[in-house]
Amino acid sequence: MDRLFVIKIGGNVIDDETSLSSFLESFASIKSPKILVHGGGKIATKIGDKLGVESKYINGRRITDDDTIDIVTMVYGGLVNKKIVAQLQSKNCNAIGLTGADANLIPATKRPVKDIDYGWVGDVDSGRFLVSSFQLFLENSMVPVFAPLTHDGYGHILNTNADTIASSIAVALSAVYDVRLIYCFERKGVLESVDDANSVINLITKEKYKQLLSEEKLFAGIIPKIDNAFAAIDAGVKEVLIGDAKNLLQNSTEQTLGTLIK
Amino acid sequence: MDRLFVIKIGGNVIDDETSLSSFLESFASIKSPKILVHGGGKIATKIGDKLGVESKYINGRRITDDDTIDIVTMVYGGLVNKKIVAQLQSKNCNAIGLTGADANLIPATKRPVKDIDYGWVGDVDSGRFLVSSFQLFLENSMVPVFAPLTHDGYGHILNTNADTIASSIAVALSAVYDVRLIYCFERKGVLESVDDANSVINLITKEKYKQLLSEEKLFAGIIPKIDNAFAAIDAGVKEVLIGDAKNLLQNSTEQTLGTLIK
Repeated sequence: MDRLFVIKIGGNVIDDETSLSSFLESFASIKSPKILVHGGGKIATKIGDKLGVESKYINGRRITDDDTIDIVTMVYGGLVNKKIVAQLQSKNCNAIGLTGADANLIPATKRPVKDIDYGWVGDVDSGRFLVSSFQLFLENSMVPVFAPLTHDGYGHILNTNADTIASSIAVALSAVYDVRLIYCFERKGVLESVDDANSVINLITKEKYKQLLSEEKLFAGIIPKIDNAFAAIDAGVKEVLIGDAKNLLQNSTEQTLGTLIK
Repeated sequence: MDRLFVIKIGGNVIDDETSLSSFLESFASIKSPKILVHGGGKIATKIGDKLGVESKYINGRRITDDDTIDIVTMVYGGLVNKKIVAQLQSKNCNAIGLTGADANLIPATKRPVKDIDYGWVGDVDSGRFLVSSFQLFLENSMVPVFAPLTHDGYGHILNTNADTIASSIAVALSAVYDVRLIYCFERKGVLESVDDANSVINLITKEKYKQLLSEEKLFAGIIPKIDNAFAAIDAGVKEVLIGDAKNLLQNSTEQTLGTLIK
């Protein structure tokens, strides 16, 4: 099987022009088939503020109401996505900007209202992925760039977690590719000691993870990320890499400069 | 050759939810391969106003400065494009929302500065179209939906006339399809008498056009549209249809309810 990179970047890369440009340079230079998934960054909140649309939260969870879905559709699907595409095109990378609605690439359903009505939020329906549509792009040297949006099948766009989109794509495509899923975040990797930014653990296996958990060394925020990584691996993804954009892609096919989970 | 429809809609359809929904219903029901090109509508100006970005004009020509290109990228490439895609998907039409930057589908160059600096405006470079990329979508039952944006090859998005995008696509694809290019606008077609909205001329040939021009019967605004239509026909497009969205697509494969130019 061919190797496929599925790489997710978040606000810390998107919000800074220099970081973004240098990340895209590294990304463009990856020779294997690849897919980029981007989050939104702070610009949606900034534009929302200017338009007088307040960010709404219930119990700390963000709510996507009518105004908010319009803003994220504009900012994630338009501004951020097309800027990335134009930049990648200028670096000889044949990017094609997409959402999960386009060609129905990422099947999703509106999150059911239980205790909280999240509004226009989508949950990815992993079972309904049509792998052949992704292959059509990849086999024709196109590089899909996904904004974190899906649709409900009834004509509405849905705000959807970018980490979930990345792992769902990685899992679905592991049927036909050796998938390496890469999460870029603000640290260099999973740290042995929270206070030392350079104490990166280079490899976490399930055994090592159990040990780290029992020693209570890990910082709390990283635990769901590692759980998700192992879930992706159990579902067919070859390996997951976590670290910062700057280091991770330096020699992405050769060497690991973040935390490799496998 | 298979028939291909290239259909352009403008603000009068996009700005009105009912008109848009009923147009998309008709569009979705067309059985032949098809491509939709949409303009922007008034929403870009409305959002620009709210964000405190003034529309700028020099000698009556709109200028696309740094703030304006961000707004049209958001609104045309994000909000309008993805809303149309989600609606078409809900009507069993496998729409894929694109700009000219995506997969470098519509080659363009930034308009050179002569008397006026138009800013981030693109002119389509018809000679460089890669027809095979369009075929890839069309032959896999995807329906491209284009926002009027291109890119300059140096990482910038460019604002680009939607009529021109539609006619350039129509001309490029006439090498491999029998193309019918349809311009939806606010009138029922080219009118015999400006004061009578129902005096639609059903067929304009070059001979008929000469006669109409000599009789000075046509309203001024329609002349460039007819000139463009004949230019597209001279470049290979089979026929051009001009009229309002409501009537044009009623029986689009059967009957002409606007002005047919051939």
